[in-house]
Amino acid sequence: MKQVQSRITLVGAGPGDPDLLTIKGQKAVRSANVILYDALVNEELLELAPAAKKIFVGKRKGFKALGQDEINRLIVSEALKNGHVVRLKGGDSFVFGRGYEELNYAQLLGIPVEVVPGISSSIAVPALAGIPVTHRGSANGFYVLTAVLADGCLNPELRLAAQTNATVVILMGLSQLKNIAGIYEETGKGQTSVAVVSNGSLPQQKSVTGTVETIVELVEQQRIKAPAVIVIGEVVKLAAESNAIGIIHQLLN
Amino acid sequence: MKQVQSRITLVGAGPGDPDLLTIKGQKAVRSANVILYDALVNEELLELAPAAKKIFVGKRKGFKALGQDEINRLIVSEALKNGHVVRLKGGDSFVFGRGYEELNYAQLLGIPVEVVPGISSSIAVPALAGIPVTHRGSANGFYVLTAVLADGCLNPELRLAAQTNATVVILMGLSQLKNIAGIYEETGKGQTSVAVVSNGSLPQQKSVTGTVETIVELVEQQRIKAPAVIVIGEVVKLAAESNAIGIIHQLLN
Repeated sequence: MKQVQSRITLVGAGPGDPDLLTIKGQKAVRSANVILYDALVNEELLELAPAAKKIFVGKRKGFKALGQDEINRLIVSEALKNGHVVRLKGGDSFVFGRGYEELNYAQLLGIPVEVVPGISSSIAVPALAGIPVTHRGSANGFYVLTAVLADGCLNPELRLAAQTNATVVILMGLSQLKNIAGIYEETGKGQTSVAVVSNGSLPQQKSVTGTVETIVELVEQQRIKAPAVIVIGEVVKLAAESNAIGIIHQLLN
Repeated sequence: MKQVQSRITLVGAGPGDPDLLTIKGQKAVRSANVILYDALVNEELLELAPAAKKIFVGKRKGFKALGQDEINRLIVSEALKNGHVVRLKGGDSFVFGRGYEELNYAQLLGIPVEVVPGISSSIAVPALAGIPVTHRGSANGFYVLTAVLADGCLNPELRLAAQTNATVVILMGLSQLKNIAGIYEETGKGQTSVAVVSNGSLPQQKSVTGTVETIVELVEQQRIKAPAVIVIGEVVKLAAESNAIGIIHQLLN
């Protein structure tokens, strides 16, 4: 049996645009013997490593997705057999990416793991839609959360988030938009601005802006689909301001 | 007078390691005629554009830092005179980077602005110290905030953050560590785990881990200096767990 140097690199691939991978991530992918990737990873990135073995471990229509335990075992067995495994995930591995579970499993078995941070959709997708998650005077912090927990229930933390003055960014929450809006309305924040941005950073990026009271209808009308990022807070208005400025300049020229 | 194509790209340079720049950011820097950069930007990145004019606009010992209005005007005047201006900032431009103010000023004057997201220290610096900001079961969200507001006062939002179950990440807060710990103690969370990570992603990265009650003394003892990221929450324990596993494997080999 050939001798291999087993190691694992957890690489965040960013929100979708392949150029939003970091240089460090690019180097890791290029030196991979095996790449395990998810549904949200742009497959163009796989071309960086033409000779590597590629294994898709995400959810795909008609197929049962691998469980986290199976993925953990697969990463380790590939590293033991083939050397350098790159685990490539959309966004950042540690932002709802279950990266720590993979890191921990491999470390327990004595395989070295390196982490290469990725551009998180939680910050970058709003930014690419013109929305800064922080802005002097209107948002002194931002709170990122998932809409539902592992058990399928609405994240109880949403109620606390709605009470802060933070910009609230919700990932994987489109199907829960009505419930989220409900929480804000109960908190007396029906007039708060909301944006929903789908396919952020990709050519098909689309966003819709409204208030807590209007957003559910707007998203339906404009047929916004997952994957989408929900942003709630006064900073959402800044994107509308930018758009208006753009239109004025177009009219003047 | 020569005709120039004025445009501005706001590029997030990441936490410090030059390889944590994105490919898109690298392309922007390479095509820059002028680069305006801050104190936290790794100067190695400037070598990507040997012919570009470089202007330092950060705080430097013994010199008065430029005000935001002066920076806004400088970006625009350089774009009008010299073409493509890259505004290079540590981390991400929209995470306490005042990027929107620069974007807005330039857009009002009709100059096109593109935003290239950067790796934010708020997520990446904990990650590189082994701390995932989210983890299934122990943290279903994370809240990023600055310690002080523009007026120099402690961010009142800290008190709300302390009441949530989020991982709390505080940027630019080392000098306020005692006050921050005080808020957590008043909330009955004196036993909560805290890590302080300085110079994250750089060779001189250093981190110290304790609880709300012990962290101030530990940071003094170990002479941790700014720039530093403070992380508060149960996920901090996961880094200690990883370290312990690493030590056991070293002993076994």
